[in-house]
Amino acid sequence: MSEERYNKGLAQLEAMGGESVQAMLNQLEDMSSDLTGMTVAFAYGDVLSRPGLDLRSRQLATVAALTALGTAPVQLRAHIDMALAVGCTRDEIREVIIQMAVYAGFPAALNGMAAAKEVFRGRDEGEMG
Amino acid sequence: MSEERYNKGLAQLEAMGGESVQAMLNQLEDMSSDLTGMTVAFAYGDVLSRPGLDLRSRQLATVAALTALGTAPVQLRAHIDMALAVGCTRDEIREVIIQMAVYAGFPAALNGMAAAKEVFRGRDEGEMG
Amino acid sequence: MSEERYNKGLAQLEAMGGESVQAMLNQLEDMSSDLTGMTVAFAYGDVLSRPGLDLRSRQLATVAALTALGTAPVQLRAHIDMALAVGCTRDEIREVIIQMAVYAGFPAALNGMAAAKEVFRGRDEGEMG
Amino acid sequence: MSEERYNKGLAQLEAMGGESVQAMLNQLEDMSSDLTGMTVAFAYGDVLSRPGLDLRSRQLATVAALTALGTAPVQLRAHIDMALAVGCTRDEIREVIIQMAVYAGFPAALNGMAAAKEVFRGRDEGEMG
Amino acid sequence: MSEERYNKGLAQLEAMGGESVQAMLNQLEDMSSDLTGMTVAFAYGDVLSRPGLDLRSRQLATVAALTALGTAPVQLRAHIDMALAVGCTRDEIREVIIQMAVYAGFPAALNGMAAAKEVFRGRDEGEMG
Amino acid sequence: MSEERYNKGLAQLEAMGGESVQAMLNQLEDMSSDLTGMTVAFAYGDVLSRPGLDLRSRQLATVAALTALGTAPVQLRAHIDMALAVGCTRDEIREVIIQMAVYAGFPAALNGMAAAKEVFRGRDEGEMG
Repeated sequence: MSEERYNKGLAQLEAMGGESVQAMLNQLEDMSSDLTGMTVAFAYGDVLSRPGLDLRSRQLATVAALTALGTAPVQLRAHIDMALAVGCTRDEIREVIIQMAVYAGFPAALNGMAAAKEVFRGRDEGEMG
Repeated sequence: MSEERYNKGLAQLEAMGGESVQAMLNQLEDMSSDLTGMTVAFAYGDVLSRPGLDLRSRQLATVAALTALGTAPVQLRAHIDMALAVGCTRDEIREVIIQMAVYAGFPAALNGMAAAKEVFRGRDEGEMG
Repeated sequence: MSEERYNKGLAQLEAMGGESVQAMLNQLEDMSSDLTGMTVAFAYGDVLSRPGLDLRSRQLATVAALTALGTAPVQLRAHIDMALAVGCTRDEIREVIIQMAVYAGFPAALNGMAAAKEVFRGRDEGEMG
Repeated sequence: MSEERYNKGLAQLEAMGGESVQAMLNQLEDMSSDLTGMTVAFAYGDVLSRPGLDLRSRQLATVAALTALGTAPVQLRAHIDMALAVGCTRDEIREVIIQMAVYAGFPAALNGMAAAKEVFRGRDEGEMG
Repeated sequence: MSEERYNKGLAQLEAMGGESVQAMLNQLEDMSSDLTGMTVAFAYGDVLSRPGLDLRSRQLATVAALTALGTAPVQLRAHIDMALAVGCTRDEIREVIIQMAVYAGFPAALNGMAAAKEVFRGRDEGEMG
Repeated sequence: MSEERYNKGLAQLEAMGGESVQAMLNQLEDMSSDLTGMTVAFAYGDVLSRPGLDLRSRQLATVAALTALGTAPVQLRAHIDMALAVGCTRDEIREVIIQMAVYAGFPAALNGMAAAKEVFRGRDEGEMG
C-alpha cells in the first residue's frame, strides 16, 4: 500500500473526528497492521475523501447501513461518534436510526438506538468529568 | 389502522415521488391490502414525514441500508428513484453506493450500482420516449 | 448417509406435501445428489419428523425465518406451499409474513408477501386448469 | 402517534407477558421515547393484536426469525420469555430453535439454544428465589 | 486511484481467469467506472495478489463466504468460475458449498450448488460448442 | 440419531482439535443434548469427514464464512482455533480474514481479525503459563 494513500486517509480521519478517531486508531493498531493500513487507506483515503457527497450525509449513510446490518456494534458506535464530530445533530442520528425500523425491523432500530444512547452518554460524561 | 395515518402516508408518498410512486402503489395494491396499508401508514405516515431530517438525507440513508443488506433489489430500485424524485443527484447516489463497498463489501456495492444504472437508464429512456 | 435416514426423510416429505414435494425433489435431484440426500435425511428425516412440535407450527416458523432472511426465495415459495399442504390457512401464512415487518423490516415482509401471492395464484390456476 | 394505538399495544403487551414485559418496557423507556412508542403502537398495537393467528404461533415464528437472523440477542431472549408467557412449552421453543439449524445453520441454532437456556435458567432461579 | 494499483489488479485478474475474467471486466465496465477501478485495484491489486495464501484457497474461501451470505449470486458464479480457472476441482467446489449447509443452512447451500451447476454446465457447453 | 454417526463425528472432532475441542464439547453439552448430538453427527460425522477436500481448506472456508456473516463470534473463535489445530498458519488465517474486507466489508474483517487476535493471544498465554 502506498504511503501516500495511507497518509491521505489518516489526514481525512484526523480532520473528521475528535477523540473517537484516536480511540479507533488505537483499536486498529492492536490488530493486523496490514488490515489497519488498508482500512485507513481505502475507507478514508480512497472513499470518504471523495468529493460529490458531504461528510454529514456520508456518516448518516454509514450509521443507517450499520444499524440495518446489525453485525458491527463497535463500528456503529464509532460512526455515531464520527457523525457527531462532522456536525450531525443527535436528532438527525436518532431519525436515521428510527427510520431503519422500516427497512430492517424494530430489533435493528432498537439496538441502533441503544448504541446511540451509549455514545451520547459517553460524551455527556466526558464533558462533565 | 386509522384512515388518518394512511392518508398522511399517502400524501407524503405523493409529495415525494413522481411516476415511481404510482408504480409502487400499484405493486403494493397487488399484495395483501393490509400490508399495503401498514406500509403507507407506518413508513410514510409515521416515519418519513417526521421533521428532524430532510428527505434527501432520508432517501440516501435508505439507499445505503438497502445496498448494504442486499436482500431487497425491488425496493432498492424504488428508493433510488425516490431519491432522485426528492432532489438527490445521480452523483450523490453513486457516492453512497460506492461507500457501501467499505461497510458491506464490493459485491453489495456492485449490485447496488447495477440497480442505480437500471433506474438511471429507465429514466433516460422515459425522457427520450 | 444411511439409507434408513434418507427413507425416513422421504416418507416425511411425501406425507407432508402434495405436488410441491415432487417439484422439490426434482429440483434437488438436478443438484449434487449428495446434498440432496443430506437435505432429505437431515431436514426431513432428523428434524422435521421429530415429535414435540406440530407440522403446522414448524412450517409457519420456517416461513417466518425465510421471510426474515430474504436470501432464499425459491425455498420460501416451497415452504409456503408446504405450509398449505400441512393445513395452514392462507390467512395464517399472510399473518406470519406481515409480522416479519416488525422483526425484519417492510421490504422483507413485502417480498415474502409477493412470494405467497405467487404460490396462492399457482394453486388457484392449477385448480382451475 | 395516536394515544389509542399506543394504549392498545400496551394492553396487548401486558396481556401477554409477565415480568419480562415490565423489563422490556423499562429497557424501551431508556431509549428514544418516540421509538418506544412506535414499537408498542406498531408491533403490539397494530400487528400482534391482529386476529388470524394465535399468540403461541406468533411467538414461535418470532423466535424462529430472530434465531435465524442472529443479530438481536436481547430481543431473542425477550421473545423466548414471551413465548413461555403465552403458553408455549420449553420443548416447543427448543424444537423451533433446533429447526433453525436446517434453515440458518448450526451456529445460529446453537446461539439460539444458548439464549433459551439462559431464559429458562433465569426463570428457574426466579422461582427458587 | 493510482494507475499502478489498477494495473497490478488487472494483471492479477488476467493471470487468474480465462473467459470469465473478460466477462467480469465487461460487466464492471458497464457500471460506475470509479467503482470498477476500485474493485480491480483493491480486490485484485491489494488483496488477492498478497503472498501468504495460495489462490486456490483464496477462491474457495470466497465461494464459501458468498454461498453463506446468499446475497450476491452474480459474484458467486463469477468466483466459482475463477476457482476453476486457478485450479480448484469441481469436487472441491462442491465440498465447500455442501459444508456451508452446516454454517449457513441448507437453503444457502442448495442455492450455492445451483450456482455451481450453472457454471459447470456453461463450461461444458462452451467446450462442446 | 444413530450412535454410529455420532461416534464418527466425535472421532473426527477429536482427531482435529486439541484443547478447543474439549471446550467446544463442554459448551455443547450445556445445551440441548439433541442439538449437541446433531451438531457432532451432521457437521463432523457427515460433512467434515468427507473426502474430497482437505481439513485445512475446510477450516479456512469456515473462518471465511463466519467472518463474512458476522453473527457467530463464539463459533468463529472456535474455528480459528481448529484451523490452527489442523495445521493452518496464523498468516493464512489472517489472509482469509483480510480477504473478507473485499466480500463482506471492513467491519466484518476487523471483527474477524479481533477474534483471531484473541485466539492467538489465548494460545500464547496458554503456552507461557
